[in-house]
Amino acid sequence: MFEITFRFENSEDTVVIAASPEETILDAARKANVAIDAPCSGNGSCGKCRVKLLSGEVSGLQTSHISDEEYAEGWRLSCCTKPLSDLSVLVPDIASAYRSRMKTADLSSGKEIEIFENLLSGVRAAGVELKNAFETVDLTLDAPTLDDTMPDNERLTRALAEKVGAEIELPFYPMRRLPSVLRENDFSIRVIGERKGETFLIYDITGRNDTRPLCGVGIDIGTTTVSAVLFDLKDGRLLAKASGGNGQIRYGADVINRIIEQGKNGGRKKLQDAIIKETLVPLIAALCRQAGVPATRIYRMAVASNTTMNHLLLGVDADPVRTEPYIPAFFHYESLKAADIGLPAHPNAAVRIAPNIGSYVGGDITAGAFAAMLWDRDELSLFIDLGTNGEIVFGNRDFLVSCACSAGPAFEGGDISCGMRATDGAIESVTIDETTMEPTLGIIGEAGQKPVGLCGSGIIDLIAELFRCGIINSKGIFVREGERVAHDRHGCGRYILATPNESATGREVALNEVDIVNFIRAKGAIYSAIDTLLSAMDMDESVLEAVYVAGGIGSGINMQNAVRIGMFPNVPLEMFHYIGNSSLAGAYAIALSEAADAKVSEVARNMTYMELSTHPGYMDAFVAACFLPHTDASRFA
Amino acid sequence: MFEITFRFENSEDTVVIAASPEETILDAARKANVAIDAPCSGNGSCGKCRVKLLSGEVSGLQTSHISDEEYAEGWRLSCCTKPLSDLSVLVPDIASAYRSRMKTADLSSGKEIEIFENLLSGVRAAGVELKNAFETVDLTLDAPTLDDTMPDNERLTRALAEKVGAEIELPFYPMRRLPSVLRENDFSIRVIGERKGETFLIYDITGRNDTRPLCGVGIDIGTTTVSAVLFDLKDGRLLAKASGGNGQIRYGADVINRIIEQGKNGGRKKLQDAIIKETLVPLIAALCRQAGVPATRIYRMAVASNTTMNHLLLGVDADPVRTEPYIPAFFHYESLKAADIGLPAHPNAAVRIAPNIGSYVGGDITAGAFAAMLWDRDELSLFIDLGTNGEIVFGNRDFLVSCACSAGPAFEGGDISCGMRATDGAIESVTIDETTMEPTLGIIGEAGQKPVGLCGSGIIDLIAELFRCGIINSKGIFVREGERVAHDRHGCGRYILATPNESATGREVALNEVDIVNFIRAKGAIYSAIDTLLSAMDMDESVLEAVYVAGGIGSGINMQNAVRIGMFPNVPLEMFHYIGNSSLAGAYAIALSEAADAKVSEVARNMTYMELSTHPGYMDAFVAACFLPHTDASRFA
Repeated sequence: MFEITFRFENSEDTVVIAASPEETILDAARKANVAIDAPCSGNGSCGKCRVKLLSGEVSGLQTSHISDEEYAEGWRLSCCTKPLSDLSVLVPDIASAYRSRMKTADLSSGKEIEIFENLLSGVRAAGVELKNAFETVDLTLDAPTLDDTMPDNERLTRALAEKVGAEIELPFYPMRRLPSVLRENDFSIRVIGERKGETFLIYDITGRNDTRPLCGVGIDIGTTTVSAVLFDLKDGRLLAKASGGNGQIRYGADVINRIIEQGKNGGRKKLQDAIIKETLVPLIAALCRQAGVPATRIYRMAVASNTTMNHLLLGVDADPVRTEPYIPAFFHYESLKAADIGLPAHPNAAVRIAPNIGSYVGGDITAGAFAAMLWDRDELSLFIDLGTNGEIVFGNRDFLVSCACSAGPAFEGGDISCGMRATDGAIESVTIDETTMEPTLGIIGEAGQKPVGLCGSGIIDLIAELFRCGIINSKGIFVREGERVAHDRHGCGRYILATPNESATGREVALNEVDIVNFIRAKGAIYSAIDTLLSAMDMDESVLEAVYVAGGIGSGINMQNAVRIGMFPNVPLEMFHYIGNSSLAGAYAIALSEAADAKVSEVARNMTYMELSTHPGYMDAFVAACFLPHTDASRFA
Repeated sequence: MFEITFRFENSEDTVVIAASPEETILDAARKANVAIDAPCSGNGSCGKCRVKLLSGEVSGLQTSHISDEEYAEGWRLSCCTKPLSDLSVLVPDIASAYRSRMKTADLSSGKEIEIFENLLSGVRAAGVELKNAFETVDLTLDAPTLDDTMPDNERLTRALAEKVGAEIELPFYPMRRLPSVLRENDFSIRVIGERKGETFLIYDITGRNDTRPLCGVGIDIGTTTVSAVLFDLKDGRLLAKASGGNGQIRYGADVINRIIEQGKNGGRKKLQDAIIKETLVPLIAALCRQAGVPATRIYRMAVASNTTMNHLLLGVDADPVRTEPYIPAFFHYESLKAADIGLPAHPNAAVRIAPNIGSYVGGDITAGAFAAMLWDRDELSLFIDLGTNGEIVFGNRDFLVSCACSAGPAFEGGDISCGMRATDGAIESVTIDETTMEPTLGIIGEAGQKPVGLCGSGIIDLIAELFRCGIINSKGIFVREGERVAHDRHGCGRYILATPNESATGREVALNEVDIVNFIRAKGAIYSAIDTLLSAMDMDESVLEAVYVAGGIGSGINMQNAVRIGMFPNVPLEMFHYIGNSSLAGAYAIALSEAADAKVSEVARNMTYMELSTHPGYMDAFVAACFLPHTDASRFA
């Protein structure tokens, strides 16, 4: 056994663990609970898990993801490298940038917020009341005397029952502090509770001077990215918004790898800890800090997520989701409380889970389709959610049919060597001068922000532009020479967006042929899913009247370019509507409103699920779509 | 600041803490969470908090509790001793013997078990059904197929609803393991649940081969002693019994000192931890070990305890109980679950709290009076619960009136220099030869057990015998000389029951004048409470038809001696019935039976509380009773 000492960029911490010569550095890191990104789950294909060898001897070959110069500096892929002696390795901060960086939104501006609020006006306009059963009740109780020795709880519940005309339920959490709160406030108090049928359920008892809002939280748990909003339960006013990476990413980029990991000994706990302790706890803490409220002020929550993600969140075995006959533990599960899974909130806060309708169409889609309002429209519409899983819903108020495809993490910047989430430093738009081949970049962040990597919308633009300018062919292979085009010693071409001097990190930002092929596969999965779904209904894209595109791919998605590369059907551009993170909007609506919650369940019950993987024709459609724009070029003429 | 190093008898552990010259060793021990018994809460009166100085210099005077020889050996009272240098002190194991020793009962024998079961036959005979709403239901579900993809939870709840004819509630705890349990058992399962009105509430889903019993637990939390039974919910069969000291003892021997301690910064948490983490968690673990079941198999619990103890258990501020107008936070509190306060049991297990009726008459008395069956008898009966608080209930099926007095811990061996609980090594009975003054001892434990100390019943016998033999006078002062009588240099007399050679510990076992005075005060409190309660009803002891004596004072209490010292009223001996721990029996009945639970609440609602402390005449009656047997000797003629 050797000792591996992990050191961390921008940190004084060290972690030491014993490792055998048969274990990779990534294996050892996982044992030691050291977070190294490995979207491909350690099979050497994504190139994300790089570490820098500071001392010691290792075995393992140089891969195409490491340049000669980098190799000389000590860079290695941790999944392909094993110790031959005691080691000291540096875990780069940048490697986990797209995973761990948390972004809190400025709610005073932002296109995404606007989109978000438009969605909700639509919901309201459709007659879904955006309200809940929470109330604050002010009470002045008689102070006890030697002749009036009624105990505190009876004193409270009798007066409250009379005022609200309901039976009172006083759970342990508010009971605990009752005598102190009554006496600190001279028996003049404010009760926070929720009406449930004939019962008024108490959550908190506080003073009259406590004017902090009653809060709700909506959460979208994506396979790669997690976003959440905190809002005032009274009127739905947004108080904070934040997003970050899903901490489970180091157990695999897609749901299949995560399910395999959770099936290992202790895996369910590890995956659950990764999403709750590592991801949601700091995310909700950021929301609360931003809004200036304690987490115990969160009284109602809703989570929209795919079937695998909500199983892993609950710590429920997800293996049956993956294996025939593909049975989730639940579609609807309505009894969850924050304390059950240790979410930072009032312990009795209900956690509503947007319902699943199948193994691969989950609550993110039912919530998203709800927010996209397909169920309230006459027009035949298509809803496309671009995430690690791509999901498609087609229909109108008369019918809804859905399917899912595995796109991989490419749309969120995973599986792409310089990919990243749509956060500061991400290149979100690209144009290329056809003559000089020089790029013009749109970068997220303040003026002067140098590029760190590429987010999904930037990749779409870049591939569309490379193809338009004839720099790559329909298979994604480089066919023009130039200053911006380079090849490594294996002959793999790449387009250089930023040289080491031009980038924020001192490392080149480029898109190579492997990345392009990965991305073509992702866009092909989406297009062929749409194609197959419409064919199954004996229709084609000519019937479409509207296309709603959702997902965290970046607010600036260029629809023309997306059509140009054959990702979306070739319909008039004005039919496309980017609706942002509709899953988050749906979660927000469910957390805010009993009526929305009920409506999402109704939409889910009326949605038909089509299993693509067993559908004849899908594989052919997929292969045909893995070209730029398509093997059948007439579709994009 | 100096460093104090605590070492422990029979342990390799050490604990080091910094302490100022102004702090006592006891203060430092409490800061360091080192358990040193201090029933008097550190005012130098009980003499229990002795430690042995191994090295270092200290300030503080020798007290009467430490002999010259012991002083020379390094023994000091930790509450009266402060550091003058770094110290090393030994914390003796024997000091905490009466607190921490846990005793598990052999259920195949034992007078106490017999008494316990007789009580329950009485309850059953009175028409109270000893059953609950727990059920096990065997189900065979259709295994899912590609054509039958209903998720697990719907599959379960539909089949179960049909079988039990009720709406199904599936909380998170059983939901969590659902997919695994279904598949491990080929969809042929056993459901454990409870009917609640129209609902069937699931607790566990398990395999058909799981034949372990569904368990309930009844707990009596006394100020000094805690006892519990674990039983089969199906038929009430006892599976295990255990008892131990209340870990809160180091924060004071009586409820007043505990309430003061819990009012300090962080005190509520400390007192709650002392009863839950230090006391109930190991006690329940012992029960489960004995019965061979995991704690999660406990589905229903009940606690009988005085008002202060149940407030401290819940972590609810008890200060209003102590200060005018003496208002508890609750009399009845019915919403508690095991998970709310971290009791080791199924997290959804209800924890029923026997109701309080006043600040100083709590659930131990309502549960005890229930078990003593006063509410079902025609005879005018007296119920006496001998504990740190003494409580009296008087009446019959037509009325019940109760009061409480503070007896201190003497009946349970506290406040007595060689006192201990009624466990192995306790002298539980004494006779003295009037001529030779030599004692004959009855000692708890196996044959040949040497004495460790005196439990309550032994103290009653000893004082009665010393008085009968003219060795002490009616004030408790030694008036005969002899080999067994000694005096310290302050002139304080004592009777030696065992010399260092004769004892189990190498230390003398004796009862001194201070102990006798403490005990006379305790018995005086009980007698005067009975006297005052009867007088207030315009009655006297001549109306009594039965006297039920309860408490952990020792099963062998000699009623004649108790009357002889003026502790109990002078009624014919055949009227006395020792009924053991009736509070525990009541808790057991509440945990086992919904009907018993309801009946205890009814008894509590019909019981009148008389506040003794403000009652004119009580103080005079108390002073008159602080003699052997009484200032009015005609009462005991």
